[in-house]
Amino acid sequence: MSFFPASLETLIDRFASLPGIGRKSAQRLAFYVLSQPLEEARAFADAIMEARTGVHCCKICQNLTEDEICSICASDRRDHGTICVVSEPRDVLSIERAREYNGVYHVLHGVLSPMNHVGPDDIRIKELLQRVADSEVEEVIMATNPDTEGEATAMYLSRLLKPFEVKVTRLAYGIPVGSNLEFADDATLSRAMEGRTEM
Amino acid sequence: MSFFPASLETLIDRFASLPGIGRKSAQRLAFYVLSQPLEEARAFADAIMEARTGVHCCKICQNLTEDEICSICASDRRDHGTICVVSEPRDVLSIERAREYNGVYHVLHGVLSPMNHVGPDDIRIKELLQRVADSEVEEVIMATNPDTEGEATAMYLSRLLKPFEVKVTRLAYGIPVGSNLEFADDATLSRAMEGRTEM
Repeated sequence: MSFFPASLETLIDRFASLPGIGRKSAQRLAFYVLSQPLEEARAFADAIMEARTGVHCCKICQNLTEDEICSICASDRRDHGTICVVSEPRDVLSIERAREYNGVYHVLHGVLSPMNHVGPDDIRIKELLQRVADSEVEEVIMATNPDTEGEATAMYLSRLLKPFEVKVTRLAYGIPVGSNLEFADDATLSRAMEGRTEM
Repeated sequence: MSFFPASLETLIDRFASLPGIGRKSAQRLAFYVLSQPLEEARAFADAIMEARTGVHCCKICQNLTEDEICSICASDRRDHGTICVVSEPRDVLSIERAREYNGVYHVLHGVLSPMNHVGPDDIRIKELLQRVADSEVEEVIMATNPDTEGEATAMYLSRLLKPFEVKVTRLAYGIPVGSNLEFADDATLSRAMEGRTEM
């Protein structure tokens, strides 16, 4: 038997179905929503529907946008001959924040992961190949995460891109700026040594 | 400059305004909502509105309910002469789970907290007094949390209830069942010693 009203239980269930939210947190969030003024609750509900119905993938780069083509793909101040391949929309944000890159992006929406049954057809690979085939692309930068799956995806893509005679590069590995050699792991240190540059 | 569509930013802001949800978690939750089928997003939005508009406080005990009177207050199998005073609706759930108590409840919706500007008029104290004055109540059990604010609230209430000549009790303090003496703090141990019972 449950001692919360049915609609409150439903809301708790909904919160608990979100990733990383347990039952106790879901309760806390649901109680918070109940304690808010009605307009706040309505604004939250509306925000969910507006984001879910209004946001879709850019026809070109697959990044999230409310328009047909995202602001980066639509900009004539960006270098459309360089494509940076990332796995998630949030990675675009990370790279943009570094203010170093002026090309365009391609968002895969995932990485190859046989363990989780994610194959080449489940992520936006064919859109990337189509794009490289159709337009004048000079360089494709692989910016997937430096973990096993990100690496495997980058390797797989670079092999697929070979026939197009486009330059394929990978983000540099090395010690993070501002960190401490003492805490760098062996793999990172050996990659940093391997990729050393002249001063 | 933000690189997410406006409606996505709005949804992230909404999630980030919930208690205990930081900016990164809010992003993750918003992306999750976008990745869900449309019906799921709609069900979530509807759950928020239905809970917010459908749930209110029981006219008698102030617990959350969708009806005028909650199922516990409406039940004739409960002892309406005993009122257990708790600070939050979730505390009712905790006590019900113990399957020991058969009386009714009174939910204060908070505790006295001068630091947070919560005074006697901000929690449901006058409703409790009215209830004790109007009906035949034999015992009021204080089941606020065993912390400073819960203690102070219980003390304050017991003083207010004195003129009604009703028995006022407090949940027993002592060592938790299944725990270890080694880990019990001094205050708990001394309370357990004080409240020892004959075997």
